[in-house]
Amino acid sequence: MSYIPLLPASRAAPLVGPVAERSDAARNRERLLGAARDLIAEGGVDALTMDRLAERARVGKGTVFRRFGSRTGLMMSLLSDSEAAFQARFMFGPPPLGPGAPGLERLIAFGSARVAYVLEHGDLVRAAESSAQGRYEVPAALLWQRHVEVLLREESMEADPVLMAMTLISTLDPERLLYAVRVQGVTPERLTSTWRELVTRVVSRR
Amino acid sequence: MSYIPLLPASRAAPLVGPVAERSDAARNRERLLGAARDLIAEGGVDALTMDRLAERARVGKGTVFRRFGSRTGLMMSLLSDSEAAFQARFMFGPPPLGPGAPGLERLIAFGSARVAYVLEHGDLVRAAESSAQGRYEVPAALLWQRHVEVLLREESMEADPVLMAMTLISTLDPERLLYAVRVQGVTPERLTSTWRELVTRVVSRR
Repeated sequence: MSYIPLLPASRAAPLVGPVAERSDAARNRERLLGAARDLIAEGGVDALTMDRLAERARVGKGTVFRRFGSRTGLMMSLLSDSEAAFQARFMFGPPPLGPGAPGLERLIAFGSARVAYVLEHGDLVRAAESSAQGRYEVPAALLWQRHVEVLLREESMEADPVLMAMTLISTLDPERLLYAVRVQGVTPERLTSTWRELVTRVVSRR
Repeated sequence: MSYIPLLPASRAAPLVGPVAERSDAARNRERLLGAARDLIAEGGVDALTMDRLAERARVGKGTVFRRFGSRTGLMMSLLSDSEAAFQARFMFGPPPLGPGAPGLERLIAFGSARVAYVLEHGDLVRAAESSAQGRYEVPAALLWQRHVEVLLREESMEADPVLMAMTLISTLDPERLLYAVRVQGVTPERLTSTWRELVTRVVSRR
């Protein structure tokens, strides 16, 4: 399945499928990603460094950098499978997240799905998006934003729907969601309800 | 004037006024803050490190750490004067930001004032709030949030006003605002208009 990559091609590993990738290169990539997942499982995201990954996978540090570009690129690659699945759900999946439901229903479903995604992938999402670049520039982020913008227009939200979409998406900032749940003890249900309340009020016709 | 400090007392320099502070200590503090402002003026926020500050002010590094606790504490101290002025404006100043105007008018004014504040103090705000701790735990952030919550209740926004306040405040994240203006070319006026649109729709009675 084709999808919008998390990083532009120039900065990330080429996210082509195993068919296009030479099979030994693909195997090496999978082996590196497997080693990275092991490091995270053992010591959390902080334990994953380019140095340790090279050591664990018994390759040179240069190989790791050529493959992923940067630590952020590595995080993005780790996330790319789940991101692809997430994109597929809101672009092509069943309603209410996918096409076929009214704009507002899809907006509500999008926020709920995003909250669940952030809570599931937790620290990895947070680490990948810890820079402004990671947070706002990745094509995937632009895709979410465009998606929300289209749904706002569908609901006749005509006052600067581009910036309103950016604004609404900013309330789903992974760091904020994780902080609310882990430190402030906010339940995921409250986060989801508040998102529903927010977008319902934003698109309600006055 | 008494105000809510940006950092809890245990983590920051005691933010007492010159009267309570021994005058030589106060002078030293002002000299350190002056040196810190000079470093920022010369090389931006990145140029401000605890080491360089000690060198510039000709004091030991230990003195700098005792005085400000950490680099974040130093940033907070630099911001504290303007933060105090900002708090005074929304708590005690003239309407519509201060008391006397309807809740919605005050909400709109709060977001506009916050956008202006972030754009004025730019990188310093961003650096001070670059950690989740800096962003969500500072008493000042809790004060803004409580302020927005009270205004939402005034406007009969009864569905989880605490979390709605947190959510609305998250759209004013300094990093996001600065990125929008500096990188994406969004005008401050569009940010302010979208905030107005957002809070107006959120509190509108259906």
